[in-house]
Amino acid sequence: MDFVIKGDIVYSRSPRELAVTENGWLVCANGCSQGVFTELPEQWKGLQVIDHSGKLVIPGLCDLHLHAPQYAFRGLHMDEQLLDWLQKYAFVEEGKFSDAAYARRAYGIFADQMRRSATTRAAIFATVHREATEILMDEMERSGLISVVGKVNMDRDAPAYLVEESAQRSAEETRAWLDCVAGKYSRTGPIITPRFIPSCTEALLSALGALVRDRGLPVQSHLSENPGEVELVCSLVPESKFYGDAYDRHHLFGSHGGAIMAHCVYSSEEEIELMRSRGVFVAHCPSSNINICSGIAPVRKYLDLGLRVGLGSDVAGGESESLFKEMRCAIAASKMYWKYVDGTAAPLTFPEVFWMATVSGGAFFGRVGSFEPGYAADIVVLDDAREPYPQKLDVAARLERCVYLSADKTAIVDKFVQGDRIAL
Amino acid sequence: MDFVIKGDIVYSRSPRELAVTENGWLVCANGCSQGVFTELPEQWKGLQVIDHSGKLVIPGLCDLHLHAPQYAFRGLHMDEQLLDWLQKYAFVEEGKFSDAAYARRAYGIFADQMRRSATTRAAIFATVHREATEILMDEMERSGLISVVGKVNMDRDAPAYLVEESAQRSAEETRAWLDCVAGKYSRTGPIITPRFIPSCTEALLSALGALVRDRGLPVQSHLSENPGEVELVCSLVPESKFYGDAYDRHHLFGSHGGAIMAHCVYSSEEEIELMRSRGVFVAHCPSSNINICSGIAPVRKYLDLGLRVGLGSDVAGGESESLFKEMRCAIAASKMYWKYVDGTAAPLTFPEVFWMATVSGGAFFGRVGSFEPGYAADIVVLDDAREPYPQKLDVAARLERCVYLSADKTAIVDKFVQGDRIAL
Repeated sequence: MDFVIKGDIVYSRSPRELAVTENGWLVCANGCSQGVFTELPEQWKGLQVIDHSGKLVIPGLCDLHLHAPQYAFRGLHMDEQLLDWLQKYAFVEEGKFSDAAYARRAYGIFADQMRRSATTRAAIFATVHREATEILMDEMERSGLISVVGKVNMDRDAPAYLVEESAQRSAEETRAWLDCVAGKYSRTGPIITPRFIPSCTEALLSALGALVRDRGLPVQSHLSENPGEVELVCSLVPESKFYGDAYDRHHLFGSHGGAIMAHCVYSSEEEIELMRSRGVFVAHCPSSNINICSGIAPVRKYLDLGLRVGLGSDVAGGESESLFKEMRCAIAASKMYWKYVDGTAAPLTFPEVFWMATVSGGAFFGRVGSFEPGYAADIVVLDDAREPYPQKLDVAARLERCVYLSADKTAIVDKFVQGDRIAL
Repeated sequence: MDFVIKGDIVYSRSPRELAVTENGWLVCANGCSQGVFTELPEQWKGLQVIDHSGKLVIPGLCDLHLHAPQYAFRGLHMDEQLLDWLQKYAFVEEGKFSDAAYARRAYGIFADQMRRSATTRAAIFATVHREATEILMDEMERSGLISVVGKVNMDRDAPAYLVEESAQRSAEETRAWLDCVAGKYSRTGPIITPRFIPSCTEALLSALGALVRDRGLPVQSHLSENPGEVELVCSLVPESKFYGDAYDRHHLFGSHGGAIMAHCVYSSEEEIELMRSRGVFVAHCPSSNINICSGIAPVRKYLDLGLRVGLGSDVAGGESESLFKEMRCAIAASKMYWKYVDGTAAPLTFPEVFWMATVSGGAFFGRVGSFEPGYAADIVVLDDAREPYPQKLDVAARLERCVYLSADKTAIVDKFVQGDRIAL
């Protein structure tokens, strides 16, 4: 469907600048933006006009990191740090996904809530279970969002009910899963997903690296999230120069296909430099980093160095799928970082976190997260009058306000992914 | 109206313990709780039963600190610290309340949103304007909430359009306001409100102290919020031993009538000891303290010392009136405090912040914030099924989840203040 949306249109022109067109026209054809105009150009006057006058029209948001099975316990169990939290809560919940009926129920809820959110693209962890992972992919496909989903690999350091019996078996399952989903979906693809170094033997990482090289697949994992975890990785892989090197030795760090590394709170200078040179995407997950007491990532430094940074809700370390909440939290976390860690690291601004949630993170998916011509027509429309105010506000202020008030829970009135309308 | 509510009932028994009654009966007569029962006692069987089976029934929340005029710019202007933020944003907006028509529109929105929130009691700052303050009191009375509202006093260090012309004139206006609202409302009362020390001359503080003594009124103000502010107070009142002493010298620090002091991020040991001995309520406002980069208050220490601590949304330093959001933020802030400031200060727990938002802060208003017999029947009912989940959760977990997911924006289905039902 080709169409034109009329409304108050905002997207990110750069980390520092919002492109705002009040009462503008956003033209969408062949699933892509044809640009934003103050007057509708003659050539597009035949298209259907969707009138969202007075409403905010923004690019759909990109969630670079979340765990679908953990959605069931979002907003709970924030009383432990990472390694204990995994053993006590996350692994226990993930174990339930050996049951396809439970997976269908839980993933049905998850995909339904993602459909209603401001997110249009996501990189998602499933569990080790092949059948449940396929169920998740079926549900995500049905949601209309575009996503990559990973069957998780873990062959050590997890409870017996969750750990895979060997590196070989884990790799075989992964290959079987890849074969099974190949060509099955139009919006949903696979991504290689070693959970993190503590869960994966060298043999497993090596087998996954071979898959990445052979099939040109992207990778997602965790990196330098928590001090205890970083120490554990050092002791598990003493031959690695740093945490990220333990992935890189097996071609799992952006050398073949794209890579998303979540967290990067404690990355060393060498690790940061390798991320930069390899174009690794940092999934910044401030809610999660605070909830499970990991710390605050040095995002100002990453932006200054030109790293690719997006946002991740990291459900269920993060309490919800809302990326509006995550933008607000990224600003808040950066203020505490400035206050208590590094007084030279200027707090993040609203335009910067909006850029991270849209076009910066969106680059993982291609030309996504902007309304410049040629970008995917991923669109979210917000009726911000649902949070009333007594005075006139300009368009940029209205958007900032929506983000601070988490209006993505209450004010989304229309949504498109690559030009396809999502039933809300 | 006397009645019984059937549902899953939770209140705070102590800072560490939730009192949970699944499928219980909460009996309300003469505006007060008569207790929570697992079986409805014979003597109450004639009362109307309001069936909220399967829903969460909790005490209404108490907001110890917010600025009604700033509600208009909630979620905006988070790019400055306190003193500049006041001059650039807060004072400019407050200046508009010299216009009664604007005040009526803005306060109408404010009171309407408060009515729909989980808050049942509030201590509210208005502006210096007498007429607008009365409009706010009219609106709050109509909302059904119980509140204290303060005409703000400030006779120095503010723009000409906002500052009162003299201490004497400020005090006269305050007396005239008090006379005018005396006996006018059943749910809304006055509270003496010197903005903060930098805005008030000694002469004004002295006159307000006399009013407090003569009329037995409570006081609300700000205390030790921001390093620059604390330094300014030192230079403005060099004869004070510490910031709080500048209030105390004029009987504005809990020596006569109750007192609420917002923030207390940088209170000295002497100041803390005086707050403790005087029973001053600390309004902990973590969202605001982070948004405008003030810092994180040492709440664990205040709890250990037995200070009276409640929560304040501090709209619009805080971005919204949601006290669920404030509870979540209090936990998050305490984790960063533990991580980056004091590794011996254990992070706050969910039962502790729920206690602060209910019975601890509620004590400012009397027997409020609990369902123990004799406490006011301030009740909020939440339909937490609106945030679906696939597994069985116990009642306490369901409440924690609601708080983390800010379900006060979407899931409130019934609300009572002192036994009176609020039209939602």
